[in-house]
Amino acid sequence: MKVLIMGIDGYIGWPLALRELAKGNKVSGIDNFITRKRVREVGSQSALPIPTFKKRIDYVKDFGLGEINFHRGDASDPDFLRDVIIEEKPDAVVHLAEQRSAPYSMIGLKQASDTLKQNMLSTLNLIYAVKENVPKCHILKLGTMGEYGTPNIDIPEGFFEIEYNGRKDTLPFPKQAGSWYHWSKVHDSNNLMFASKVWKIRITDVMQGVVYGTRTKEITSPHLFTRFDIDEVWGTALNRFCTQATIGLPITPYGKGGQTRGFLSLEDSITCLDIALSHPPNDGEYRVFNQFDEHYSVNELAALTKEQYEKGFSKKAEILHVPNPRLEAEEHYYNPVHEKLKNLGYHRSKELREELLVILNDLSHHKSRINKVKDVIMPKTKWTESPFNL
Amino acid sequence: MKVLIMGIDGYIGWPLALRELAKGNKVSGIDNFITRKRVREVGSQSALPIPTFKKRIDYVKDFGLGEINFHRGDASDPDFLRDVIIEEKPDAVVHLAEQRSAPYSMIGLKQASDTLKQNMLSTLNLIYAVKENVPKCHILKLGTMGEYGTPNIDIPEGFFEIEYNGRKDTLPFPKQAGSWYHWSKVHDSNNLMFASKVWKIRITDVMQGVVYGTRTKEITSPHLFTRFDIDEVWGTALNRFCTQATIGLPITPYGKGGQTRGFLSLEDSITCLDIALSHPPNDGEYRVFNQFDEHYSVNELAALTKEQYEKGFSKKAEILHVPNPRLEAEEHYYNPVHEKLKNLGYHRSKELREELLVILNDLSHHKSRINKVKDVIMPKTKWTESPFNL
Repeated sequence: MKVLIMGIDGYIGWPLALRELAKGNKVSGIDNFITRKRVREVGSQSALPIPTFKKRIDYVKDFGLGEINFHRGDASDPDFLRDVIIEEKPDAVVHLAEQRSAPYSMIGLKQASDTLKQNMLSTLNLIYAVKENVPKCHILKLGTMGEYGTPNIDIPEGFFEIEYNGRKDTLPFPKQAGSWYHWSKVHDSNNLMFASKVWKIRITDVMQGVVYGTRTKEITSPHLFTRFDIDEVWGTALNRFCTQATIGLPITPYGKGGQTRGFLSLEDSITCLDIALSHPPNDGEYRVFNQFDEHYSVNELAALTKEQYEKGFSKKAEILHVPNPRLEAEEHYYNPVHEKLKNLGYHRSKELREELLVILNDLSHHKSRINKVKDVIMPKTKWTESPFNL
Repeated sequence: MKVLIMGIDGYIGWPLALRELAKGNKVSGIDNFITRKRVREVGSQSALPIPTFKKRIDYVKDFGLGEINFHRGDASDPDFLRDVIIEEKPDAVVHLAEQRSAPYSMIGLKQASDTLKQNMLSTLNLIYAVKENVPKCHILKLGTMGEYGTPNIDIPEGFFEIEYNGRKDTLPFPKQAGSWYHWSKVHDSNNLMFASKVWKIRITDVMQGVVYGTRTKEITSPHLFTRFDIDEVWGTALNRFCTQATIGLPITPYGKGGQTRGFLSLEDSITCLDIALSHPPNDGEYRVFNQFDEHYSVNELAALTKEQYEKGFSKKAEILHVPNPRLEAEEHYYNPVHEKLKNLGYHRSKELREELLVILNDLSHHKSRINKVKDVIMPKTKWTESPFNL
């Protein structure tokens, strides 16, 4: 199978490339390295050092994993993307090339515009490039469980049958996202659903939970590390908590900490994406996978991090609640379904409690690197501010 | 009340300006005249001649309606829009400044991108300009009944309470739009709903049905005419049918003709918008109005046009079904609610059957003008084509 990975230099893109190479698939990729640039812009860096992409390609060869055909460019440029699709003729395109930070999208109008515009256009360009050049190609698109928000009813996988005023229909589940980033993913989902209907494209839209971890079975050496962001803009809550524990700062949940989300390990996320690639949808099928294993509240994440840090490093960790810079329900019902991947043979292989020790151990070797950027861990980006001009 | 009308040169914008002036409100407006340009680009023109905007301002003075403070510019330019908002300090902004043609959005990738991007950015810019400069200002935004698509259940006004797996919640009604244009309006609705939540902005999101007519009570002279588009890209089905009858061409419904939509007259549309302006939402309220009076199938529109033309002009009209260039259900359930405007005192004043005679009469004075553009009435833009490059 020929797989084109858009955003191959990213947190998910890189380990997915390693997995697909290890499986003997032909891997090509695109990236414009904008995440590297934007992380620098907020004064941060990946807590784990990562090589340049040129070196990544060399290491992959050194480790006997094979070759990556790389194209540097921006997916929001339609001609660039079309030319790559024509050259690579992929069987599947994994679209990970979007701005992926909720806080970034809430910094101000410029960031909101860029997120909404560039995420939407990259997906639209992909739709047109695929339909016209490789109409049987499978588009595997990363969305987020955050598209659903936190409704007071169960969350199905994309669609649900409802009865209303005595009549029935199967409809897309209503989305209630909580940032411009999350809304950009909702808009993409809607656009993909429509594209599949009009042009019979095969699409898997992955509502992915929060991914944690530094390792997959292919990441056997620091040379193969994927990026690991820890700042308020680019790092997840769990990444920040692990980082805070590592350098002796208090672990800081936002608000009451009852905010509950779905989670899965990096290893399992890559396995899920690989399963989706191995089981493409039918012609014209638009399918939605809810991709996560378990849900945790922010308080549970903080407590688990504290517990595992204290166990693994025999030092104390402290938890300190700070005001929530986001606008979100801090106590709510949360019950999303996640069956479709299991029905295709997915089994969970990692558990958060154990994986925390692996993350904390990897971070423990980079304390001085982390200490350089410790001032960007605490929240500055406030949802209710988001000014017109910065 | 100070009302800023974005898209004041358009089909709805112009008669709304006349109405607000007639009511003694202070009216300002913006426009970039892009609809005039894009209509020329497809080789068409308004069937009724309309003056330049400069002349429109003069005529308004001549007819004793007062003054319009006009700003030429593009709402997708954030600084332009903010400067106008700061200068005008409006109590309400009516946002009509979006690309409003479904076929235009389906011509090809460029038009799809422009529609999705510019519609979204104009609304986003407005949100930020309002929240920062006139936080109590009422945003009255034009969406479309087409956002809902044609579900097999009743369509409420924006939100509905549902029971699912034994639990209840009030959720946004799931949208299933049928073109990039319609999706751009869905994306706007989602963005507005979120903005209202985060920044407590007052928003009315109007799901407007198809508007018909050439007149309002203020349009007493051809000098005050609003535009009336008749080509396959910019004209509605009813406008095309009236035009075809007027110049002796067959009336051409697309497909089986069972496609059913909500309709209201231009006079009543302006009345609805004015009622919404006079009854603004509360702080932080995002409300949705379904704005239409009656629903008709395409076949009913064709039959009514034929009947009224034959009655009014004592000549025969012919109906000829042509292949449907769109992707849409041609036979379906359709039952949208429309109560909120009635609860605010709205009463219908016009009826399609009578109004058809007014339209046909206005068109009858411009046959030679219409004959010049008769080649752009029949559909060329096909939903399933929409190429990457034209």
